[in-house]
Amino acid sequence: MSPVAVSVNMNLEYKIGGGFMRIGIIGGGAIGLLFACYLSKSNQVTLYCRTNEQVRLINKYGIYLKHHGTVDNFTIKAQPSDEISAEDLFIIAVKQYQLEQIERVFHHIPSQTPLIFIQNGVAHLKFIENLSHETIIVGVVEHGALKEKTNYVHHTGEGLTRLAIFRGNEQFVGPIIHKLNTIPFPFIFEKDYLEMVFGKLIVNAVINPLTAILKAKNGELMLNSHYLHLVHLVLDEVVKILDISDREKVFMRIKTICENTASNQSSMLKDILNHRQTEIDGIIGGLLNMAETKDLKVPVLQFLYHSIKGMER
Amino acid sequence: MSPVAVSVNMNLEYKIGGGFMRIGIIGGGAIGLLFACYLSKSNQVTLYCRTNEQVRLINKYGIYLKHHGTVDNFTIKAQPSDEISAEDLFIIAVKQYQLEQIERVFHHIPSQTPLIFIQNGVAHLKFIENLSHETIIVGVVEHGALKEKTNYVHHTGEGLTRLAIFRGNEQFVGPIIHKLNTIPFPFIFEKDYLEMVFGKLIVNAVINPLTAILKAKNGELMLNSHYLHLVHLVLDEVVKILDISDREKVFMRIKTICENTASNQSSMLKDILNHRQTEIDGIIGGLLNMAETKDLKVPVLQFLYHSIKGMER
Repeated sequence: MSPVAVSVNMNLEYKIGGGFMRIGIIGGGAIGLLFACYLSKSNQVTLYCRTNEQVRLINKYGIYLKHHGTVDNFTIKAQPSDEISAEDLFIIAVKQYQLEQIERVFHHIPSQTPLIFIQNGVAHLKFIENLSHETIIVGVVEHGALKEKTNYVHHTGEGLTRLAIFRGNEQFVGPIIHKLNTIPFPFIFEKDYLEMVFGKLIVNAVINPLTAILKAKNGELMLNSHYLHLVHLVLDEVVKILDISDREKVFMRIKTICENTASNQSSMLKDILNHRQTEIDGIIGGLLNMAETKDLKVPVLQFLYHSIKGMER
Repeated sequence: MSPVAVSVNMNLEYKIGGGFMRIGIIGGGAIGLLFACYLSKSNQVTLYCRTNEQVRLINKYGIYLKHHGTVDNFTIKAQPSDEISAEDLFIIAVKQYQLEQIERVFHHIPSQTPLIFIQNGVAHLKFIENLSHETIIVGVVEHGALKEKTNYVHHTGEGLTRLAIFRGNEQFVGPIIHKLNTIPFPFIFEKDYLEMVFGKLIVNAVINPLTAILKAKNGELMLNSHYLHLVHLVLDEVVKILDISDREKVFMRIKTICENTASNQSSMLKDILNHRQTEIDGIIGGLLNMAETKDLKVPVLQFLYHSIKGMER
């Protein structure tokens, strides 16, 4: 361990030991809004937004969070994402394909400040690698959330957030998780970040493009026997690319998630229905690259990729 | 040639030589209505319908045909399909999957009367094989038509009808075509019925399921570069199953049809949008059976098949 790392370690433990953390959340999409609300219960949250309009609305009216039919209002400080303040921790909640656009933001964040990246897929790992920050955590979010208005988010599916260390010292993560945890908004620690992100990648690779192409809710993938066939066609190719031995375990995880979020629209379906760019490049694009490297034929994944890319137009 | 066949031959030539033909069209869908209108211009057409409501409406108000913005009204006799009269020729315009339901109708049609079957796919050929009729012609229809109301059809795409002999004497077909032809409603003769139906099958296998899944008009398959990728993914597998050497020729035919019917919705897209059963079994189901016989892997066709079957629910 280098002396610098020790110093950061102690610095961080000092900060997170005493009361609340100052948490900066970058990105005012559904997940950014959701995290801002829940984490503000026992931390001081600043939400960094791309548009001045969102900054203005949130500072004036707060954020509305709908959950199980009740709506709560949270007073949250919002700032433009090009005006970074000092924080104890940053959570980066923009989409993977937006990371390049906010690259300069990271120059304004001291390299000792821990960062948590919660993008889908694996494409963001390359971006993270090039950052100079000493403590980087990656997370996968298993909540359902729908941004209904600029400052209004609907928590449509209760889940959890998995965190694992990408770079830095393991001792940091325990206290951070402890501080982040707010029932009903659990965080759990995972040992292996690659296993974690690939686990999520597989789930996303199967559920997201299929539901977006079929215009189906998550639960239908298991209930409709023909759609279940499609799940297996996609999984066949994913298992081949990632050389997964326990296919059944992977399938059971997909099944559980489809059942737990049965009446939800996947994020990709919502993106397609709202004529927004999807995360297909980060999810299926990455797998196609791996298949090409391994010289594997994956016509079904190609089909998914080009269907979604064509629909994005 | 059997003596019976000669007798039929002469009988038919006698009838079709003298003035109009009495043509019975079975099936009051878009194509049945379209044929009834155009063929009634120089023949005596009876349209055989499944529902009494359609019989009543057509006998009372005739059929409306919209073409290039103008609407014409045609006086056509309609009868229930279980009350077959004597005709010189029957055109069977029901869907392939409805043939079994009207099987007993064929017991009331004399075996000397020529039949023309214009179903999509190849699955109907098996049904036809079991009929005892001496002259059977198969046709592929390259018109676009949309049934807007029970007795109102919109001719959305001008094309032609190809006819080829499935069973019987070649000399019959020339005079029949001659009598059927009504500009702008051309019929042309094809030598090889198998080549003809497979040609249409390929076009249908590519255009119909893709447009139905993507909710795209025919023209988009060529204009959207990602959708064009999908066309090639499907064609790859079709070419493999049917062992086609001139892939480029097949692709050019698909391209031409997509361009000629650019703003049309395929029949399968219309079926899906209207929550009706599609012809997927006759089109892709047949190809999947062939692939299984040849022990070929065709994941993209399986994907198309189960997507459509799942959407039909």
